[in-house]
Amino acid sequence: MSMSVQSNPYGPNPSDFLSNVNKFELIESTLREGEQFSNAHFDTETKIKIAKALDDFGVDYIELTSPVASEQSRKDCEAICKLGLKAKILTHIRCHMDDARVAVETGVDGVDVVIGTSKFLREHSHGKDMNYIAQSAIEVIEFVKSKGIEIRFSSEDSFRSDIVDLLNIYRTVDKIGVNRVGIADTVGCANPRQVYELVKTLKSVVSCDIECHFHNDTGCAIANAYTALEAGAKLIDVSVLGIGERNGITPLGGLMARMIAADRDYVLSKYKVHKLRDLENLVANAVQVNIPFNNPITGFCAFTHKAGIHAKAILANPSTYEILNPEDFGISRYIHFANRLTGWNAIKSRVDQLNLHLTDDQCKEVTAKVKQMGDIRQLSIDDVDSIIRDFHAEQQTPSLRPAPTTEDDIEPVAKKQKTE
Amino acid sequence: MSMSVQSNPYGPNPSDFLSNVNKFELIESTLREGEQFSNAHFDTETKIKIAKALDDFGVDYIELTSPVASEQSRKDCEAICKLGLKAKILTHIRCHMDDARVAVETGVDGVDVVIGTSKFLREHSHGKDMNYIAQSAIEVIEFVKSKGIEIRFSSEDSFRSDIVDLLNIYRTVDKIGVNRVGIADTVGCANPRQVYELVKTLKSVVSCDIECHFHNDTGCAIANAYTALEAGAKLIDVSVLGIGERNGITPLGGLMARMIAADRDYVLSKYKVHKLRDLENLVANAVQVNIPFNNPITGFCAFTHKAGIHAKAILANPSTYEILNPEDFGISRYIHFANRLTGWNAIKSRVDQLNLHLTDDQCKEVTAKVKQMGDIRQLSIDDVDSIIRDFHAEQQTPSLRPAPTTEDDIEPVAKKQKTE
Repeated sequence: MSMSVQSNPYGPNPSDFLSNVNKFELIESTLREGEQFSNAHFDTETKIKIAKALDDFGVDYIELTSPVASEQSRKDCEAICKLGLKAKILTHIRCHMDDARVAVETGVDGVDVVIGTSKFLREHSHGKDMNYIAQSAIEVIEFVKSKGIEIRFSSEDSFRSDIVDLLNIYRTVDKIGVNRVGIADTVGCANPRQVYELVKTLKSVVSCDIECHFHNDTGCAIANAYTALEAGAKLIDVSVLGIGERNGITPLGGLMARMIAADRDYVLSKYKVHKLRDLENLVANAVQVNIPFNNPITGFCAFTHKAGIHAKAILANPSTYEILNPEDFGISRYIHFANRLTGWNAIKSRVDQLNLHLTDDQCKEVTAKVKQMGDIRQLSIDDVDSIIRDFHAEQQTPSLRPAPTTEDDIEPVAKKQKTE
Repeated sequence: MSMSVQSNPYGPNPSDFLSNVNKFELIESTLREGEQFSNAHFDTETKIKIAKALDDFGVDYIELTSPVASEQSRKDCEAICKLGLKAKILTHIRCHMDDARVAVETGVDGVDVVIGTSKFLREHSHGKDMNYIAQSAIEVIEFVKSKGIEIRFSSEDSFRSDIVDLLNIYRTVDKIGVNRVGIADTVGCANPRQVYELVKTLKSVVSCDIECHFHNDTGCAIANAYTALEAGAKLIDVSVLGIGERNGITPLGGLMARMIAADRDYVLSKYKVHKLRDLENLVANAVQVNIPFNNPITGFCAFTHKAGIHAKAILANPSTYEILNPEDFGISRYIHFANRLTGWNAIKSRVDQLNLHLTDDQCKEVTAKVKQMGDIRQLSIDDVDSIIRDFHAEQQTPSLRPAPTTEDDIEPVAKKQKTE
């Protein structure tokens, strides 16, 4: 258990007997849910490249688009099954024998079956009642099992489904021997305490594993996944950068951040998190999006510290303001010192980097000059280095030149510095 | 209470007596926390523009950078206090009389005081013990109160602080009459159930309001804010797009999405959510970032539906796959039909838009052609329209021309369509 958990009085404790936080598994759905992302159109070569990268990263399952979606989808599914990856290959189908018959012939290790159980979906999507749903489920499950293939049964829009209907159907499919049941927040409406209650209740009704799928419409997909694991769910659906329908699902990288904060040893022993950035770049390029500026871990400033008080403490001990270690991801920490919120500890650290020698009082004095300049305009590192070098030179020959106090005075110095 | 909540069996219930979900307030910190974002350098004009936009949006408080950060920071604080905004103006200072003396002279309505209480920050930042912290807090609080100004006391890194230390200091400051106490997840390590427990416990110790501040390093800042409100916190710190130190804090837009899913009437009565997009664009331009592709509400595909089964149900009733109504934000829903995952209901809807007439069976037939083409390459809307128009023309004069089946056949049709 990592230091961050031990030092947190509200962290995991022995009463968390339900928790799977330190033994969760990932169902990676970039090639299924991710294909439903607006910009996604993966050709065969791209699918294979992504599948291999996911496998190398260490995901437990790779989920693929239904083979009945299109002829090429079926061929691609077969091709990926033949790659001989360590990860188990799944495909995702409607709860229907027509789909199941095609799925079992592709060579997949498992089939994920889904059907809408909410009033909304029963009225406006398939139009079937719960008895019909249960009968279809039993038929499909028994057929897939007879082929020696893993089977998961999931409801859709679970958080707007009737609790009694849900528990009834889950108990039914558990009894006939599904490998997993799935809860899906298809519209992204769920919040963590609801998730905890539903998973905990379901855990008392079924003996199989529980898988959870969370959309991110209201920004809770990572937190809901974490809370589901606390309540006893075992598997979480993710995609790279969270791509999927609308604004997507639980992102692989964000969930890694969350889980490392809970149990760094488990995550690092199982997943190659130092390859996260390459994996995200691969998928971002394939679907033509930029990594969000505020992405956990790989956002451009995820390890940038700016305010003086933060920089001071980070320089003394990175754990003061970091719950994640950038080195785990092959990323560097950055102390932003070229701005008016800077403090003298950050400037002193820069003075040391420049191999100059100033006393603490002198560092405070030059910091005041940096802040004064930062009030006038946005500073570059060159600007600050010029102010520091200039100040340092004055300390050696104090009478030579007055300290710069306005932009006009500074500008030529900064320029001169750049041409040296 | 909105329909989505009523239809959710795990939603709010009468036992949620602690909850402030339907009466929360916002402390908007784009001009304080947001100024600590790597790319932020707000000149006076930009600060005033942002402050006015936030006020128009309806935020309850606007928090500004400490007046001791730099001379211009102090002048800007005074200038914003003189704008006569409806929102109350706060500034954010260290727990120190030097800072407090400057802050009370700026004209602010309130002062937010913060001090690090975790072992990490006590050892590596200010180096003070809890007694010293309590004495400083009392002196600063009594001074600020004597000036007739609101005062908040917050610990920093609260989730890695000792629970007994925390409750002691909160009780002390509550007794001497602070307006609010603050909990801060400064490093972004907290998870929802920890938040619920800490806020609930604190609620039993203090009689003043509770404010919460969540960093987003592990992707839980929105969920933690929501759960804090459920446990009885009253105020949440947000910034536009979540900008702040590292990858930032609870974003205003994401929290609006979360809160609308819980109590749409309250949110719409209080905040001008249709101005969210303009507000985000204003700040994104000022700090030179793009709106993340997966941003809640304003991400480019937040209301785009792609898979055939989703499109079908959305066409019947948008609530099937939407927890938010795009019209609330002045945004349009989009059904993505030009891809191989499409279904015949989406294509039928496009046929209707084109004012053509095909039977359901004919729509299924042309959908198969679209999927076949989508397997070969990424489709544009023009491509699909060409396939539909071509198919429609054939139905009128069946013998004229065979249906296109390969890319070579389709290509000229698609090109011809574009030049018409």
